[in-house]
Amino acid sequence: MEVEKALKLIIDSASHNFTNRSGEKIDVVEGVGRVTTSPVFAKYSSPNYNASAMDGISVKATSTFGASEGKPIRLRLKEDFIYVDTGDPIKEPYDSVIMIEDVVEIDENTLEVIKAASPWQHIRPIGEDIVAHELIIPANHEIRPVDVGALLSGGITEVEVFKKPKVGIIPTGTEIIEPGKPMELGSIIESNSRVFEGLTKELGGLAYRYKPVEDDYKKLKNSIEIAIDENDIVIVNAGSSAGSEDYTVNLVAELGEVLVHGIATKPGKPTILGIIKGKPIIGIPGYPVSAYFVFDTFVKPLIKLYQGQKVEENPSVEAVVSKRLISSLQHREYVRMKLGKVDGKLIATPLNRGAGVTMSLVRADGVVIIPQNSEGIEAGEKVSVELFKSLKEINNTIVSIGSHDLLMDLLGNFIHMKNSKYFLSSAHVGSMGGIMALRRGETHMAPIHLLDEGSGEYNINFIKRYLANMEMALIKGVKRVQGFMVPKENPKNIQGFEDLAKENIQFVNRQRGSGTRILVDYLLKQKNIDNEKIAGYEREMTTHMAVAAAVASGTADVGVGVLSAAKAMELDFIPIGEESYDFAIPVKYLDKEMIKIFIQALQSQEFKEKLEELGGYRLENTGEVVRNN
Amino acid sequence: MEVEKALKLIIDSASHNFTNRSGEKIDVVEGVGRVTTSPVFAKYSSPNYNASAMDGISVKATSTFGASEGKPIRLRLKEDFIYVDTGDPIKEPYDSVIMIEDVVEIDENTLEVIKAASPWQHIRPIGEDIVAHELIIPANHEIRPVDVGALLSGGITEVEVFKKPKVGIIPTGTEIIEPGKPMELGSIIESNSRVFEGLTKELGGLAYRYKPVEDDYKKLKNSIEIAIDENDIVIVNAGSSAGSEDYTVNLVAELGEVLVHGIATKPGKPTILGIIKGKPIIGIPGYPVSAYFVFDTFVKPLIKLYQGQKVEENPSVEAVVSKRLISSLQHREYVRMKLGKVDGKLIATPLNRGAGVTMSLVRADGVVIIPQNSEGIEAGEKVSVELFKSLKEINNTIVSIGSHDLLMDLLGNFIHMKNSKYFLSSAHVGSMGGIMALRRGETHMAPIHLLDEGSGEYNINFIKRYLANMEMALIKGVKRVQGFMVPKENPKNIQGFEDLAKENIQFVNRQRGSGTRILVDYLLKQKNIDNEKIAGYEREMTTHMAVAAAVASGTADVGVGVLSAAKAMELDFIPIGEESYDFAIPVKYLDKEMIKIFIQALQSQEFKEKLEELGGYRLENTGEVVRNN
Repeated sequence: MEVEKALKLIIDSASHNFTNRSGEKIDVVEGVGRVTTSPVFAKYSSPNYNASAMDGISVKATSTFGASEGKPIRLRLKEDFIYVDTGDPIKEPYDSVIMIEDVVEIDENTLEVIKAASPWQHIRPIGEDIVAHELIIPANHEIRPVDVGALLSGGITEVEVFKKPKVGIIPTGTEIIEPGKPMELGSIIESNSRVFEGLTKELGGLAYRYKPVEDDYKKLKNSIEIAIDENDIVIVNAGSSAGSEDYTVNLVAELGEVLVHGIATKPGKPTILGIIKGKPIIGIPGYPVSAYFVFDTFVKPLIKLYQGQKVEENPSVEAVVSKRLISSLQHREYVRMKLGKVDGKLIATPLNRGAGVTMSLVRADGVVIIPQNSEGIEAGEKVSVELFKSLKEINNTIVSIGSHDLLMDLLGNFIHMKNSKYFLSSAHVGSMGGIMALRRGETHMAPIHLLDEGSGEYNINFIKRYLANMEMALIKGVKRVQGFMVPKENPKNIQGFEDLAKENIQFVNRQRGSGTRILVDYLLKQKNIDNEKIAGYEREMTTHMAVAAAVASGTADVGVGVLSAAKAMELDFIPIGEESYDFAIPVKYLDKEMIKIFIQALQSQEFKEKLEELGGYRLENTGEVVRNN
Repeated sequence: MEVEKALKLIIDSASHNFTNRSGEKIDVVEGVGRVTTSPVFAKYSSPNYNASAMDGISVKATSTFGASEGKPIRLRLKEDFIYVDTGDPIKEPYDSVIMIEDVVEIDENTLEVIKAASPWQHIRPIGEDIVAHELIIPANHEIRPVDVGALLSGGITEVEVFKKPKVGIIPTGTEIIEPGKPMELGSIIESNSRVFEGLTKELGGLAYRYKPVEDDYKKLKNSIEIAIDENDIVIVNAGSSAGSEDYTVNLVAELGEVLVHGIATKPGKPTILGIIKGKPIIGIPGYPVSAYFVFDTFVKPLIKLYQGQKVEENPSVEAVVSKRLISSLQHREYVRMKLGKVDGKLIATPLNRGAGVTMSLVRADGVVIIPQNSEGIEAGEKVSVELFKSLKEINNTIVSIGSHDLLMDLLGNFIHMKNSKYFLSSAHVGSMGGIMALRRGETHMAPIHLLDEGSGEYNINFIKRYLANMEMALIKGVKRVQGFMVPKENPKNIQGFEDLAKENIQFVNRQRGSGTRILVDYLLKQKNIDNEKIAGYEREMTTHMAVAAAVASGTADVGVGVLSAAKAMELDFIPIGEESYDFAIPVKYLDKEMIKIFIQALQSQEFKEKLEELGGYRLENTGEVVRNN
């Protein structure tokens, strides 16, 4: 079923139940963030009396008429005037205030004024701010701190607001374990319910998380029945197995009504929308990215509706898509995007589209929704990106696309800590991917480590070859040690590339275009080793850490990568050689403030010390700018 | 002292103290909204094993090589394959998954496949989402619900975040009373501290409000000493009298150091910035608008700084100022603005500039900051307005400028309740002010009640006279009863205009240009009464309610206004006559959806019933559109 149709169904079903409710009276001082059920009118005026707006004297204006410098008028205390401070009430017969600076003291009972006072001058009239019975805030209004001030000033101490919806969250699945519990093979840490909790609270709801329920019909039934009784909205978060999804849909049918099963959206297809005892129940798929978008699409509007509100659209921007995005006519798709402002153009680069990749949400600057009736988006096309971050943050982000190294994470942190205004966004597509991104004008810089097989030199020749038409520079980075990553004690005794082709050795490779892959292929060729003989040569990972993880988990015996990755995964490391990891950058960006800060960070003693702690790097001319001419 | 200089002084003084702190470790699940002190790296990979991405069978890819439709390959359970569900671990020797849909069951131990499986297909490799030891979130990052999900998935259960700053709030002043307590003449309901509480919480701080302290040196000293010991930041909110300000500044000097006393800002001049025991203390003036802006300017950055953050600028828009704004070179001024999108142009109209008018903050759509070096802004000039509301809300707002009537509040509420997308903003400048706003293209409509002295007709002639070049229409509103508002029982026995000129009668008037004023002047002229003989004729109020409030408080004996205002203030009402309160509107706006909704609301039975409840109106052709040709 289409998203809009499904949403309408659940909203319409819930509306009836949600709108036949009364609000609750709360203390105004507890009101921030709550939504009024009805307009609130002032009880008292503020000020509630005519108040002096100055420190001075209160007089009858008529008693000062005719006063001038040449002909001052004398006033007697308690006869013609009394002293008033700011805020003091102005009482009959007085109707005007003269500032203390404008009176001349003659003796302790006598003053002189040299200018006539006009009636009601320097007096805050009763109701200047709020007049009794006037509207302070309308119905359906989310109370802000300033509203609290106005309500209290208007004599209001209690206000009726929409109740907070109680959202029951049931995690299910036999394979899930609670965070902090020991991991076993096949166990998945339960985290979706905690994301739902956080989102529910942000939206003004009350989240009640139940203990995870294993894939068992009776146990799940019991848990749903309790949750429906105790809450206004219930979420069942299916494990990733097909079994738990079946349990949920059958139970909703048994206990109430299934409105929708299966929605034309990616990720999030196996969503279940139902009603039990008039309360909406949503079966959300287990993959974390699906879980997020299904919550956002269906649960968020329900939580808002319960509080008399509609979902406000996120702000969005127009950006140019850097990569072709193929999508199916079968569904609407939510694609997480990185955004970068490069050379005045906002560029959107899709992140990993897998439903299981939580980090694609964490790293996303926004999301592009590809409608169901679209087959996708061509590279270079303009799209509207719903923002997760402020445009200002995106505009202040140094965009780096290219080879991955742990130092990029450290550097990004370092720059942001020193200059909270700036951010470093680093996308990992390998060295050649970085060069191509520079050509297309999609990145400020590309970290590369590309060995020229002819000269044996790193990087500079690739810039000359592939970016000949651009005025380029190279910011020198680090000398980095590459080597074989093998399990502790090197059980299969790998010493050289010759060993990779042996029968019992499972290799894990890097993706084509990465500097490490070029190095591996170069060395294999030098040593005349046929890569077809290497088991696992076709298994490609996109980062050093992913290669190390494959070795650490035992699915490979060896991979090639940097020392820092091997250390992080507690692997042994057999050095192959040193390579240059530098930053290719168009000269025109060197003058940008954020690039200067990037270079300063590289050069700083503090950052160098951090790198040395990590190990596996040699610092030689780090931060030096070499122009390519 | 200039704002920037003062801000730098207090931030620099606080920085030293604030940055020498440790963070605190908290449960990740409690982390939403907190800010990391250091980058967080994954402990485990996610998935932590190679996991099946489908329901199906796991096989060795090599055992399927060569399979085709013509030449299927048979696989034996436990020898060549095992069944797997989504999420199940893929164990040695298997290295590939075939979807259940793509296998043909021969018997319970035998399957056939008709297509070769490629190695690692339909397998989520270990670390597909998160690789152990990689960065999940950087330092100085405000944790979102999705981050909680990623942290838990990466095996993180605790995270170090900046502590929440404790903000001590001391209300002072002998004249202030707690909300809900009985009002006496001269008492002011204490509300600023509650606004500070709300703002502090919104910014992530912990607010501790102390009991109000009267203007007493010793008591205030004691309270400040306690608050400094118990908090990280202390606010002393002076009463409006000069005395309390003096106490605060002397006490800060005695207990610590006064950095700044007096800031070139309006409102907010008498601000005090100081440091006691390394902790910032801010003396904030008592007027609510001053209090708000001083908090926003000085306390907000301190609360952010404590949490390792800087203040993010509010989004702003460019708008055309509708009225000249004169400002002094003595200070920076914060002017609250109403915004309206009229005929494609965003118009900013200044609200009441008084420091005591809380409602100017409640009603504001944004604020214009007039810098110290500017003498003001000319009408028609473009300015940048910092937004308090979303631009979308502003774009969906019907702008009404003209005469005031309680029905406008009711109507605004009614429209928003029925169509949550739309809002009605109603500015009160009197009928002629509304006509002028129409001429300048600053409003969609003008509610008017203008009596033509020649014809005795209402409204239509004024449109013809003043808006001759515009194609105009009149949306018929209500017949409204005007009359004398007098205290209960009419103690001074006012029966007609002749009584207003009597010796013992204090009158209160409306401002020039208002329909009521035109009516009053017309009737006085008809009866040949000299307005110079009417005491209080020059005291002008801008709304019916303000006139009623003046009579209710006893500062006037009589005013002219509508029944609803008299009823709201419990006054007696002596009818003078009936007038037509209609809406002048350019024809071009009649087709706009929100104007149609406005007209529908006027015509609806439900709204008519609400008006009849209020009393003082006669409904005749209400909602009918009369074109002026």
